[in-house]
Amino acid sequence: MKIYTKTGDKGQTSLIGGTRVAKSHLRIETYGTVDELNSYIGLIMCQEINPHYQKLLKEIQDRLFTIGSSLAADPEKSNMKIPDLHDEDITLLEKEMDEMNEALPALKHFVLPGGNTVVSYCHVARCVCRRAERLSVELAESSFVEDKVTIYLNRLSDYLFVLARKLNLDFGTEENIWIPRI
Amino acid sequence: MKIYTKTGDKGQTSLIGGTRVAKSHLRIETYGTVDELNSYIGLIMCQEINPHYQKLLKEIQDRLFTIGSSLAADPEKSNMKIPDLHDEDITLLEKEMDEMNEALPALKHFVLPGGNTVVSYCHVARCVCRRAERLSVELAESSFVEDKVTIYLNRLSDYLFVLARKLNLDFGTEENIWIPRI
Amino acid sequence: MKIYTKTGDKGQTSLIGGTRVAKSHLRIETYGTVDELNSYIGLIMCQEINPHYQKLLKEIQDRLFTIGSSLAADPEKSNMKIPDLHDEDITLLEKEMDEMNEALPALKHFVLPGGNTVVSYCHVARCVCRRAERLSVELAESSFVEDKVTIYLNRLSDYLFVLARKLNLDFGTEENIWIPRI
Ligand code: B12
Ligand code: B12
Ligand code: B12
Ligand SMILES: C[C@H]1O[C@@H](n2cnc3c(N)ncnc32)[C@H](O)[C@@H]1O
Ligand SMILES: C[C@H]1O[C@@H](n2cnc3c(N)ncnc32)[C@H](O)[C@@H]1O
Ligand SMILES: C[C@H]1O[C@@H](n2cnc3c(N)ncnc32)[C@H](O)[C@@H]1O
Ligand SMILES: [Mg+2]
Ligand SMILES: [Mg+2]
Ligand SMILES: [Mg+2]
Repeated sequence: MKIYTKTGDKGQTSLIGGTRVAKSHLRIETYGTVDELNSYIGLIMCQEINPHYQKLLKEIQDRLFTIGSSLAADPEKSNMKIPDLHDEDITLLEKEMDEMNEALPALKHFVLPGGNTVVSYCHVARCVCRRAERLSVELAESSFVEDKVTIYLNRLSDYLFVLARKLNLDFGTEENIWIPRI
Repeated sequence: MKIYTKTGDKGQTSLIGGTRVAKSHLRIETYGTVDELNSYIGLIMCQEINPHYQKLLKEIQDRLFTIGSSLAADPEKSNMKIPDLHDEDITLLEKEMDEMNEALPALKHFVLPGGNTVVSYCHVARCVCRRAERLSVELAESSFVEDKVTIYLNRLSDYLFVLARKLNLDFGTEENIWIPRI
Repeated sequence: MKIYTKTGDKGQTSLIGGTRVAKSHLRIETYGTVDELNSYIGLIMCQEINPHYQKLLKEIQDRLFTIGSSLAADPEKSNMKIPDLHDEDITLLEKEMDEMNEALPALKHFVLPGGNTVVSYCHVARCVCRRAERLSVELAESSFVEDKVTIYLNRLSDYLFVLARKLNLDFGTEENIWIPRI
């Protein structure tokens, strides 16, 4: 079967449930941005980092597809078989941050993003994640969005920040802080 | 001559044709995003991949500038000398997909973006392309946009998806699929 | 102290000054995009390029945090201790461009983004910078934005363009131009 179906050439597309909406709809923008985030997670994952992180990042990719289907489901329809996001998916990120934090020096300043390539990818992913979070908050103002979706994205950007710091430590590359010029 | 002209410092800029518009105008957002996409195509192109793909990606870059000038032309003015997008530009992408698809196992699931660095870049580019498509659809709701522009962007994101899969196959890196947790 | 404070889980956050706003607010979108840009500057900085550029990019990162705090400050409140952006921050970019330009062949056409990996990163950063500029222009239509913020972002995207060209020259990689197909 061909990938290109041409069914979207007039600018409309289908939600899960079949409802047709314009591709410019905020709901599409939101799950499209989750897709963009997922691509960055893939980029981090295939760099040479500790397999423990790779395993977790693969779980995160799965969760982002779960979030994608939650966002793509027509909120006016029910009875659709889509996977659920669990509270444990969120606490897993928190547990991982707590563990990494033990090894890290306490922070009293912002960190200048960078240090090495994979750390920089983490910072880019963190920012794309926050972009997705902003969209999910905006969408929730006019339509239904599962609370857990927004919370997961919020925690994931914090996870990516801590991971960036931890990878700088692991690789022995420098962490620079921002000292405001006052 | 200097690159920086300072003519845009007050937040306005000119379309092709001379009309001044705010930089926050949806039309500028749209061709600015096509520019962002073009930068990612450049990033993929300069990785070590089969010259056949590099050659096609260079053609795609040319087409994205053609699209850029179509989007940057003031729709209220005519008689401007800008290059045309052809039907053949779209069918070329389709032919390339069909050829790559012959070598690929059929898909019954979503693919977790990733595998190696260049494949991940393709997925990021795919998502930026879809962002540009969404904007062109939105712009078309209130102003003139050539149909071929939107269709080209739609097909290009599918091309980038198939290219990502093909590069995983070529490099022998793993393609992971999403099995919903139900 | 934990990074994740859970205070933003309901979709609101605080500006400098304490005012609570929705995360979907255009002001948050704007400094969130400056953050994304800053992450790309970090990515360029940690590639193997002339230390002169690395030093300047680190200065730019500092300036982007200065811009971030200017944008994050509640415009309705004053007396907040945040760092200032100076006219010299802008002229520094201009001076650097003038210097690089001396070594570069004059341009009469658009450049196809690419050449090598770090040059491509510069082009992506350039486009994210322009995205941030568009948002700052839009924000200024409805709320207060320091003029220097918008001008700095404008000049920075030009700087990143000239840097991309200069890095192609330094590395001996090819600069391709766009010849419209007419
Ligand atoms: C939401 C959605 C997305 C979301 C992601 C979904 C998520 N869960 O996060 C995003 C934006 C990421 C997405 C991307 C893409 N999608 Co999509 N997507 C959908 C949509 C609307 C719902 C899918 C869904 O989540 N269902 C909920 C799950 C739990 O249940 P399900 O329906 O049984 O889902 C399974 C199948 O849909 C599926 N699947 C079966 N056959 C195929 C074939 C292909 C090629 C793909 C990619 C998936 C796929 O895998 C799912 C899980 O096992 C469907 C259309 C529809 N209304 O059903 C299109 C659809 C599946 N997508 C499609 C396409 C082409 C793509 C892209 C290749 C587009 C692109 N150029 O980027 C990418 C592929 C991304 C990837 N990494 O694999 C096509 C597939 C056409 C085909 N030949 O079969 C569909 C049918 C839309 C269409 N008519 O064009 N998509
Ligand atoms: C639309 C547009 C863009 C679009 C792209 C256009 C497209 N086709 O996709 C985008 C957003 C990508 C863009 C980017 C940039 N642009 Co522009 N762009 C324009 C605009 C509005 C129209 C150009 C066009 O497409 N014309 C249609 C083509 C078919 O016909 P043409 O006019 O004969 O076009 C040729 C010349 O404009 C040109 N050209 C001639 N001299 C120069 C010099 C420079 C430095 C450049 C980049 C191009 C250029 O090359 C074109 C093709 O051969 C003009 C301003 C205007 N109103 O004309 C600015 C303009 C050409 N851009 C300019 C600049 C500075 C840039 C950027 C460097 C900005 C940045 N910091 O990112 C980049 C460069 C990108 C690159 N890869 O080279 C300046 C050039 C100033 C100068 N010193 O000459 C102009 C004149 C605007 C201005 N007054 O500041 N741009
Ligand atoms: C604006 C802002 C941002 C902007 C950047 C600010 C800029 N200048 O460009 C952006 C969007 C980039 C940002 C990002 C982040 N931020 Co912030 N940010 C703020 C905010 C609203 C104002 C900070 C500021 O600029 N103040 C002006 C400067 C001149 O004065 P200052 O207040 O004395 O600022 C100093 C401290 O705030 C600070 N600092 C002190 N302790 C800590 C601890 C941490 C973990 C961090 C990151 C900073 C930090 O460093 C500043 C300079 O020395 C504060 C909340 C608030 N209302 O104060 C949160 C805040 C500082 N941020 C926070 C967090 C968690 C982050 C992120 C990790 C979020 C994420 N997941 O991406 C990132 C880190 C980015 C990085 N590179 O380090 C938390 C820190 C929580 C904690 N444990 O202490 C705060 C307190 C918000 C909150 N309640 O959750 N942020
Ligand atoms: C660290 C600071 O970042 C801001 N903030 C909170 N959530 C987001 C988001 N999704 N995107 C951008 N900025 C955000 C708030 O101002 C917070 O205090
Ligand atoms: C694969 C699925 O992605 C959605 N879709 C279609 N076009 C876009 C786009 N430009 N951006 C984001 N999502 C899109 C539709 O829901 C389609 O079915
Ligand atoms: C080079 C051309 O890019 C357009 N332009 C000017 N500023 C921006 C921006 N922030 N984003 C996208 N495009 C912009 C104008 O049309 C200018 O002439
Ligand atoms: Mg399609
Ligand atoms: Mg300019
Ligand atoms: Mg938070």
